Amino acid sequence: MKDPFENRTKPYYKTHSLHPENQETPIHFIRSWITPTEYFYRRNHFPYPDLTSNSFLLQINGEIKDEMVFPYRYIKSLPAKEVTMVLECSGNKRSRFEPEVYGEQWEDGAVSQGIWKGVPLHKLLEAAGLKSTAVEVVFEGLDYGERTDFNGVFRYARSLPVEKAMHPDTIIAYQLNNKPIPYRHGFPLRLVVPQWYAMASVKWLNRITVIDHEFKGPFQTVDYVYYPNKDDDSGKKPVTTINVDSIIQKPTEYSILDKGLHEIYGIAWAGKGVIEEVELSFDKGLTWVNAELYRDKREPYSWVFWKYRWDIKQSGEYTIMSRARDSAGSMQPSKAEWNRKGYGYNAVYTAEVKVE
Amino acid sequence: MKDPFENRTKPYYKTHSLHPENQETPIHFIRSWITPTEYFYRRNHFPYPDLTSNSFLLQINGEIKDEMVFPYRYIKSLPAKEVTMVLECSGNKRSRFEPEVYGEQWEDGAVSQGIWKGVPLHKLLEAAGLKSTAVEVVFEGLDYGERTDFNGVFRYARSLPVEKAMHPDTIIAYQLNNKPIPYRHGFPLRLVVPQWYAMASVKWLNRITVIDHEFKGPFQTVDYVYYPNKDDDSGKKPVTTINVDSIIQKPTEYSILDKGLHEIYGIAWAGKGVIEEVELSFDKGLTWVNAELYRDKREPYSWVFWKYRWDIKQSGEYTIMSRARDSAGSMQPSKAEWNRKGYGYNAVYTAEVKVE
Repeated sequence: MKDPFENRTKPYYKTHSLHPENQETPIHFIRSWITPTEYFYRRNHFPYPDLTSNSFLLQINGEIKDEMVFPYRYIKSLPAKEVTMVLECSGNKRSRFEPEVYGEQWEDGAVSQGIWKGVPLHKLLEAAGLKSTAVEVVFEGLDYGERTDFNGVFRYARSLPVEKAMHPDTIIAYQLNNKPIPYRHGFPLRLVVPQWYAMASVKWLNRITVIDHEFKGPFQTVDYVYYPNKDDDSGKKPVTTINVDSIIQKPTEYSILDKGLHEIYGIAWAGKGVIEEVELSFDKGLTWVNAELYRDKREPYSWVFWKYRWDIKQSGEYTIMSRARDSAGSMQPSKAEWNRKGYGYNAVYTAEVKVE
Repeated sequence: MKDPFENRTKPYYKTHSLHPENQETPIHFIRSWITPTEYFYRRNHFPYPDLTSNSFLLQINGEIKDEMVFPYRYIKSLPAKEVTMVLECSGNKRSRFEPEVYGEQWEDGAVSQGIWKGVPLHKLLEAAGLKSTAVEVVFEGLDYGERTDFNGVFRYARSLPVEKAMHPDTIIAYQLNNKPIPYRHGFPLRLVVPQWYAMASVKWLNRITVIDHEFKGPFQTVDYVYYPNKDDDSGKKPVTTINVDSIIQKPTEYSILDKGLHEIYGIAWAGKGVIEEVELSFDKGLTWVNAELYRDKREPYSWVFWKYRWDIKQSGEYTIMSRARDSAGSMQPSKAEWNRKGYGYNAVYTAEVKVE
């Protein structure tokens, strides 16, 4: 059988909304180490900003000794660093929560891996001279718009604690996958924060303000907060580090398979530490086997590929499960921690399949 | 706020599998009367066939007076007919069944509307001279491959009862949306059967055989059969006519909305008869209001657009429901008839939304 379209049939984003643009990577159908830029997931709060000349200047102000403005060209001339890392929307897999939660119903593809190149943020902050009163660093993008919950117009803005801002791998990036960052992903400059969910990696970065208190913007204290209860805010805590997670890329859920040998494969990633182990179960979690891992040890923030050859001789219905364990001591839980806004889903991955 | 990408942000297919290619139309984001060909859903059982010269000849044999071979060019020279119609995979919305069923997890987009142009099949059958022994007409495509349930290689083949085959609107099509049918959709010739689910509309049509008995091919008697029970085949019946159905295109499920006026809109379609009414409920089915319908009365096989202006002043969680009623006396049920292979899902459509 020769399929003349075999090499021309390609996967597509899954569309969640167009204005603002929210489209997810067809993660089950992309098996490359780096997510090709044209498949990098797109997640926006607002319309794409109209870039004006001032967007090519990055301001730093607040609790610093010297207010500074860095032109784009100057930033590109500084010693640079490359970081290969997973960028994951904290709402990834939101559609899997039970009971269901409101918001974009992301499936498995609000996650991508890219090579980001830029200048370590701490170099710029050191040039500006952090004052000892500094508590947090606020990052503002050029995107703005309305919210459903408050009146007025808001700019997208987020903060980091000084310690995370000063981390040597927190960078002001100007390249994604060896090209200028595409407009949709934050051109000309994007804050890129390894290990944290992607709400921290502010696109179209325009202004950095060092403050002596905790930042209270709505994307910091209303959104991107875990609320464990449906009707009150008790027990809330901010969304920060990526949870240890994995997916089975193939077979896809509710597939029908032949008897015989099947290559089961997927990816796994973590915010703290690195992936140490991915285990699979074919009997609803009774017994587990280890998948083979493929990783780039030089890149601690990257995902790992995993693979397993499943030789299934008996027809019937099977639940295939994957669970990852990281070097920081976390393992995917059997049930995700429900929270009202649906962040951080990372339960053991399951795919039901039928063998006939 | 001016979004420079506003007119360039486009929706994409949702990918279910690449080999064979199964990708669904982003139906919630396409608001055109005719589905643009580049968004027409793609559903295949096998690899795309390698077209050879014989594919440009259509054979008719079996219970006829004269075996005939019609060249593609000759078919194009005959008096033609245009049919604007809904083509829907019988597995559309399969992912909504509870309990879940195996097979491609189609969401709402295994349905598209096109303008098909071709020659009424009955003209060709009359030219060949149907014998009085004719019971069914079998249609074979050029696509073939393996199945998970039986050994061997199978060609895709389906039959119609003579009466449906002789219906004046059952056509051998060579154009879709005013252009030659694209390869992925059946070039050069496709059987197009209005009112029936799309498994009947055989692509890459190569051979027509009139038979004096019921056809027993696996795509006729194993697949595309409603099996109401999980573990035995009792009560089975073949999949034929499209069930009355509707979707809410906007708002999408689990959206968060502002208070105020919202345009709720969607589509509705039916196999038997035409859509007479689309009703909406905002209170879980307690009360219903009529949506405004927009249709082309000259096209009985086409879907209708519907629209409603919802002015919501009270924040809270709402279930928006849509249900369509057709002129043949059917209405969408509150629960779809579960069947083992997941065909014909058409329960009242629901979208949960939160107003804040």
